[in-house]
Amino acid sequence: MFHRVTIIGLGLMGGSLGLALRQARAAEQVIGYDPGRGVSEQASRVGAIDRSYNELAEAVKGAELIILATPVGTMHTLFQELATLATPGAVITDIASTKNQVISWAEEFLPGNLYFVGGHPMAGKELSGVEAADPTLFQNCTYCLTPTRKTSPAALNKVSQMIEMLGARVRFLEPAEHDGQVAQVSHLPFVAAAALMNTIASGNSWGDSSLLASTGFRDTTRLAAGSPEMYRDICLTNSEALVRSLDDYLATLRAFRERIATRDPHLQELFARSQDLRQKWQDGQNKGPE
Amino acid sequence: MFHRVTIIGLGLMGGSLGLALRQARAAEQVIGYDPGRGVSEQASRVGAIDRSYNELAEAVKGAELIILATPVGTMHTLFQELATLATPGAVITDIASTKNQVISWAEEFLPGNLYFVGGHPMAGKELSGVEAADPTLFQNCTYCLTPTRKTSPAALNKVSQMIEMLGARVRFLEPAEHDGQVAQVSHLPFVAAAALMNTIASGNSWGDSSLLASTGFRDTTRLAAGSPEMYRDICLTNSEALVRSLDDYLATLRAFRERIATRDPHLQELFARSQDLRQKWQDGQNKGPE
Repeated sequence: MFHRVTIIGLGLMGGSLGLALRQARAAEQVIGYDPGRGVSEQASRVGAIDRSYNELAEAVKGAELIILATPVGTMHTLFQELATLATPGAVITDIASTKNQVISWAEEFLPGNLYFVGGHPMAGKELSGVEAADPTLFQNCTYCLTPTRKTSPAALNKVSQMIEMLGARVRFLEPAEHDGQVAQVSHLPFVAAAALMNTIASGNSWGDSSLLASTGFRDTTRLAAGSPEMYRDICLTNSEALVRSLDDYLATLRAFRERIATRDPHLQELFARSQDLRQKWQDGQNKGPE
Repeated sequence: MFHRVTIIGLGLMGGSLGLALRQARAAEQVIGYDPGRGVSEQASRVGAIDRSYNELAEAVKGAELIILATPVGTMHTLFQELATLATPGAVITDIASTKNQVISWAEEFLPGNLYFVGGHPMAGKELSGVEAADPTLFQNCTYCLTPTRKTSPAALNKVSQMIEMLGARVRFLEPAEHDGQVAQVSHLPFVAAAALMNTIASGNSWGDSSLLASTGFRDTTRLAAGSPEMYRDICLTNSEALVRSLDDYLATLRAFRERIATRDPHLQELFARSQDLRQKWQDGQNKGPE
């Protein structure tokens, strides 16, 4: 389908994209680029790429589709480099968790003959690195695309086709709408989990109480194991929407706290609502995509 | 080992205890009591009990060990009934998530010839009901016992033996110490998860954003699916310790919020700490019991 696809950044996500695209025979050649020591070699070994280059210029030369699978914080520089290195006509897409900031950099730095489409697959694991790459990571996942009025329809089609080949479902969203929604369902849960982990482990009795921590603790804090750099970039580029969600969460928690402190016997109404909402969401998940 | 063991309350926990005790041949007879419609029959069907009675008096008659596997809120009444119905010499234990209140009721209502030992297995699932009962639920779990100076050593030995037969590890704690520690590692994560679920699903865009909710959301909110009545009882009987933990959590979250709102570039230090603490806890889990 594609002649040459280049993946920049060969961590869990970039590696999984490579594996999935190669298994789907989506491209004649999948090229990889990652400046990390030994990363490209490992990506080749696990079959995530056909070959790699040490220079970004060579890696993107002739690429029809360039996928940026690096932390958000690197993209500012990457777009400036791609502006001169990418072959005219290339479609560039990213998989970062926030879209407004990335799109504004793309529009600022990329010339008119390079076509950017913002993307974000709703998939992941708490593991990182190409060793954890998994070709099935995107199967049945929702994959957001956030076109703007500057997005080329032809480029949008190419990226949509790539997503279908991954076995994922495209969902179109305005960039700001995307960032607001992921602030709620993805970035807020991370901050809640990280703050929970820090709170509990800062208690005097953590040495003892950690021995009582069980599956509930394990799952509620799982996201705290995620990459600090990745989440820093997410928070810095989605600060406004995330702070709004955090303020809502703080208000809910304070209301819960008051009813627990006053031993309100109707407390279970709050918990019945949580249970009901969680059950409905779970039922929707089990039913599969609309 | 035991002549007759009676389990009062045949939900997930009571049912799992029955299955585990019967499979370990821990008693000549495991008797069940549950006033819920059809519950005893179902418990018999899945093999969790040898037989059941419709009257509490008959169910506890001659029992050497009585295990209370009912919500905390019912225990106030149960102890008053057992005071006259249980056979003198019987050992009574419970599996409730909070211990101070339960122990004070036991000491208030039980006569000197009935021997109470407070207990709490650190095991569970978000499922409920005897259909979800699992004989391996307690294997390798930490099972807290909270003796006081009024606890009979002989009774403590009996309950410890029962726990060993379940494949669990006994851990002795002061009741107040227990309640403070579970407030942190168990009750706070529940409140955090329930409040998170209510916050996110109260947003205007939940219809859309729920489609983007992925594995991170799933795990962080999993505890919100728990029984509202059970968690109400937990919150009402562990209110003080839980409010202390909640205040710590609110303070941590406010600090995170400020650093996100001001786009603090050192934000990742907070997240690096969470990651490190979570990793150390996980490593300890993988190593198994001390």
